[in-house]
Amino acid sequence: MKIVRDPAELEFPVRPVGFVPTMGAFHEGHLELMRTSARENDCTVVSLFVNPTQFAPHEDLSKYPRNESRDAEMAEAAGVDVLFAPTVDTIYPRRTTEVRVSGVSERFEGEVRPTHFAGVATVVLKLFNMVRPDRAYFGLKDLQQCAVVRRMVEDLNVPVELRFLETVRESDGLAMSSRNVYLSSEDRAIAPRLYQVLARLASTLRADPQVSVQSLVEDASAQLGREGFEVQYLALVDPQNMEPVAIFHPGCRWIIAAKLGNIRLIDNVPV
Amino acid sequence: MKIVRDPAELEFPVRPVGFVPTMGAFHEGHLELMRTSARENDCTVVSLFVNPTQFAPHEDLSKYPRNESRDAEMAEAAGVDVLFAPTVDTIYPRRTTEVRVSGVSERFEGEVRPTHFAGVATVVLKLFNMVRPDRAYFGLKDLQQCAVVRRMVEDLNVPVELRFLETVRESDGLAMSSRNVYLSSEDRAIAPRLYQVLARLASTLRADPQVSVQSLVEDASAQLGREGFEVQYLALVDPQNMEPVAIFHPGCRWIIAAKLGNIRLIDNVPV
Repeated sequence: MKIVRDPAELEFPVRPVGFVPTMGAFHEGHLELMRTSARENDCTVVSLFVNPTQFAPHEDLSKYPRNESRDAEMAEAAGVDVLFAPTVDTIYPRRTTEVRVSGVSERFEGEVRPTHFAGVATVVLKLFNMVRPDRAYFGLKDLQQCAVVRRMVEDLNVPVELRFLETVRESDGLAMSSRNVYLSSEDRAIAPRLYQVLARLASTLRADPQVSVQSLVEDASAQLGREGFEVQYLALVDPQNMEPVAIFHPGCRWIIAAKLGNIRLIDNVPV
Repeated sequence: MKIVRDPAELEFPVRPVGFVPTMGAFHEGHLELMRTSARENDCTVVSLFVNPTQFAPHEDLSKYPRNESRDAEMAEAAGVDVLFAPTVDTIYPRRTTEVRVSGVSERFEGEVRPTHFAGVATVVLKLFNMVRPDRAYFGLKDLQQCAVVRRMVEDLNVPVELRFLETVRESDGLAMSSRNVYLSSEDRAIAPRLYQVLARLASTLRADPQVSVQSLVEDASAQLGREGFEVQYLALVDPQNMEPVAIFHPGCRWIIAAKLGNIRLIDNVPV
């Protein structure tokens, strides 16, 4: 596996090229994206870049876990051909151009993190232009990010095929996340409840598509509140436009964000 | 020459591909861009699209001159291989993603037309992604547009080489523009004064680089005012960042925007 710092070296002799943009701190979710890309393409490129523009000033940019040599070993073992690990100055000699996606980026994560998705959309477009992949791979754990990237690619006619893969979970159901390491052992024990509640909501709705979504949301939020979560949002949405849906809708998903201690967890499941 | 409506048909068997984005109503300025592209590339693509998002509601979108069959004949004669003439619905099934370039887009035209450059940057990026050219050609008549496109391409790492060509002028010096046809015959007779004044400012500054730019601006603005122009701005700028410069600076240009009757004219010259 080759490690590249300079985007000018991103030339690939074989195609198709699969691309997995990441912020490092790899777990099974990342590795699954890499392995899928390696199966589906002749060359797989992974970027490792902790993008400062998608963090708000009060967020955890400086604390974000970083371990490039460990990540490089894991990527190589997953079949990655090129690890693109640029510096912040390489990616942002200036920050004068911004890509803004309205609508799909505004609710939920966009409400809690109002500058987040412009940072995501801009860096993903920059990385796409540097790597020029045929396919790009994203994990559905960040459902709204997937929706924003899909919308940006459609709206700006970016010539790339997007592939979204289901969330990889710990054996107890907790969605894998680079931030899970920050959970205290008590909170780590409670954290899987988030998924268990979402899974129950999904099965309830499947069993009775006419059930009141609002009362399901109220009951589940109250339940999680009693168990120690501070629920920021819990909703049934159309993942194409990230709009809430009032009743069952093909393809709809339950989404949630909740704080447990100081740690913010997000998750989502299909119905 | 092939006329294409559907971006899916924008596949080119030969490279390099040169691209000239236009709003039609071709004059010698456009034709010079096309001929240069035809000389420098194996395939030349011209887009003809009157982009609604770069017009403000009170501007002249509906009156913008349109004559596709005349334009197609002129493009073919200039050596163009593909004329891409999409509908508004093809380009904008939605308008949810916007590219904003700060700094370079904010003064001058950006002050008079605050939504203009986001519309320009977004449509140019979309067209670049549809056509995927090796080189793209722009006329320096729209100096700030050139600066905004250059900045966007750099900031977003768009893989295209930009070529900027000097303004083509009528024999009396008036910069060619699709909007010149709207000038009354009296105003058409006065209009070349804009260029004459710019040319004199450039030679004055070349002769004496220490001269006060501010007094030159004041004198020239007053002169043009007496001749019937309403000067919106007149400035010496660095065309890389479109910031005013107080004294001579290598590469600096004089820029002007003025109304003559209801018609707005812009022009610029190198020093």
